[in-house]
Amino acid sequence: MRIAIIGYGGVGRAFLQLLLDKKDELSKEDINPNVKYVITSKGGIYNPDGIDIEEFVNYTKLNKDIMNFSTGEVQHITFNDLLENKDIDMVIEMTPTNKNTGEPGMTHIVESLKNGFHVVTANKGPILLAYKRLKEIASKNNVQLGIGCTTGGALPTINGGLMDMAGSTIQSIEGVLNGTTNFILNEMEKNMLEYDEALKKAQELGIAETDSTLDVEGWDTAIKLLILTNVLMNQEKELKDIKVEGISKIKISDIQEAAKEGKKYKLVGKTVKVEDGLDMTVRLEKLDTKNPLYGVDDKNKGIRYVSDTLGDLTIIGGASGVTPAASSILRDLINIKRGYKFISNNI
Amino acid sequence: MRIAIIGYGGVGRAFLQLLLDKKDELSKEDINPNVKYVITSKGGIYNPDGIDIEEFVNYTKLNKDIMNFSTGEVQHITFNDLLENKDIDMVIEMTPTNKNTGEPGMTHIVESLKNGFHVVTANKGPILLAYKRLKEIASKNNVQLGIGCTTGGALPTINGGLMDMAGSTIQSIEGVLNGTTNFILNEMEKNMLEYDEALKKAQELGIAETDSTLDVEGWDTAIKLLILTNVLMNQEKELKDIKVEGISKIKISDIQEAAKEGKKYKLVGKTVKVEDGLDMTVRLEKLDTKNPLYGVDDKNKGIRYVSDTLGDLTIIGGASGVTPAASSILRDLINIKRGYKFISNNI
Repeated sequence: MRIAIIGYGGVGRAFLQLLLDKKDELSKEDINPNVKYVITSKGGIYNPDGIDIEEFVNYTKLNKDIMNFSTGEVQHITFNDLLENKDIDMVIEMTPTNKNTGEPGMTHIVESLKNGFHVVTANKGPILLAYKRLKEIASKNNVQLGIGCTTGGALPTINGGLMDMAGSTIQSIEGVLNGTTNFILNEMEKNMLEYDEALKKAQELGIAETDSTLDVEGWDTAIKLLILTNVLMNQEKELKDIKVEGISKIKISDIQEAAKEGKKYKLVGKTVKVEDGLDMTVRLEKLDTKNPLYGVDDKNKGIRYVSDTLGDLTIIGGASGVTPAASSILRDLINIKRGYKFISNNI
Repeated sequence: MRIAIIGYGGVGRAFLQLLLDKKDELSKEDINPNVKYVITSKGGIYNPDGIDIEEFVNYTKLNKDIMNFSTGEVQHITFNDLLENKDIDMVIEMTPTNKNTGEPGMTHIVESLKNGFHVVTANKGPILLAYKRLKEIASKNNVQLGIGCTTGGALPTINGGLMDMAGSTIQSIEGVLNGTTNFILNEMEKNMLEYDEALKKAQELGIAETDSTLDVEGWDTAIKLLILTNVLMNQEKELKDIKVEGISKIKISDIQEAAKEGKKYKLVGKTVKVEDGLDMTVRLEKLDTKNPLYGVDDKNKGIRYVSDTLGDLTIIGGASGVTPAASSILRDLINIKRGYKFISNNI
């Protein structure tokens, strides 16, 4: 399989490392990865015979500037060169997310699909803004678009909704989709910390980012919920359609009172079918032990689908980190290779 | 899609009903089911233009003998006629399970695969006895074998292990796989019943069968664990390789003592990689709240996979009954139609 890597950060490096570590298993699937391009905002390299992945990974462990890597690579390659050469089967799009324009990922995905390349992406922006349009372009060009990494990484939220619920109509989506807030709430309960202290601990441990607004104000959860709703319920909702509340006002006394009732606070993203459409919320909810998401602790995540014919399905897991995220990209790649049509030809 | 139904009990009728109820959704997937054969131990009928599913379902609600149904059907059709006619794409095999010979399902599956028909089956016997051989026959003939219904019905255990864990190596399998025993244990805890009383209640409610040996002695769990282990870990184990203990010796005092420690007894089937192979057990285990299977209550089921690169994955759900079971067959049918290769060409 001839591959182009666009965007090369922590997940990108973990992905190439996985291609090395999983060489034998991939070979059994008849997948022999041939990475021809690595393109970043600083420039791109190209090797028509395939970049030596092992050498490249080792090189980039020490050097940030990929433009000085050379074992015969062509330097200063751009995305347009890739489109002209047309010598790949799949683009792995991992550039940083822009929630307003989706760029540069949007252009990469649109043009790749139009040129007949499968795309697997970790980039939430384009999927958030234009999934339906991207799906139509993919369908028209008879290629696939893998987006599993955008909504929970290792947790198979998209797989769960598309493959495990195939033939069933999803009536509600309920998820604990943000590991950072879940860790903070867990710390408050377990170690009797107030919110600010728990947040600080999460930041010190590298679990929360320095600017953790996206996580703690609920926007990361909202983005994931939006993508899941649009993809699995065939909607075209926008972020403004979701009522979003974060966790920053919660006090340790709230958590203790809930615990007395045998309940736990979780930041829950939820889409429910109501009479006049959909009710979409992100907010703190008190879950009791009857709710299978009750046990989603620490950095874990969980998603629950209620359906008409297959009943309830709850999936819990989703290890955090660059390797699990890269593994979810590899999962999409393999499922596409196995012939799965996430997107049918007749939408 | 041209379909033959072999074996027609409660799940079979629910399956045909689903084909009617889901007509529009299936049409969107480009699936227009054309059921040409229904063959049971009492005889078979055949309509080269497709049996009128609605009339047939209504007829069989009142009449057990399908041989008197006729809107132009050819009567007294056998499985051999179907093999000769070669005018179908998929066989849905739902005959009763025989754990010793696998028959008559084994012959149906082998011959169907050899004749180039996809097979989706609810029949544990052949899968238990000969999955690897069946997989090889399917691969050789470039057709698929869907077995999701054999290991938990609506709970996507096979999907979870094959599709959601694609690219990751499963290191252990741990499941609460039998709804009946889970219901009994739950009743004992909730309503302070002794084992015999809880079993009686389950039987009265139709949850446990009159002869519930297979369930309560752990064999149903063992069979499902065996299939999952062989399919997901590429093994050829047999039932004798599993240490199997049932739940019939548990006392209400045991359950109460566990509850004091904040734990619950569950009948757990577990396969773990150890130094010299695999350790496979079915037995009562005390789970604490840290174990995501702790919350698998009532008739629910759950499965947990631990993997190398995608971390832990726990799936909980799996509504009981003929419609969820039939829905899991429909799920396999759709995923095969979507192009998924459960079985690759190069095994």
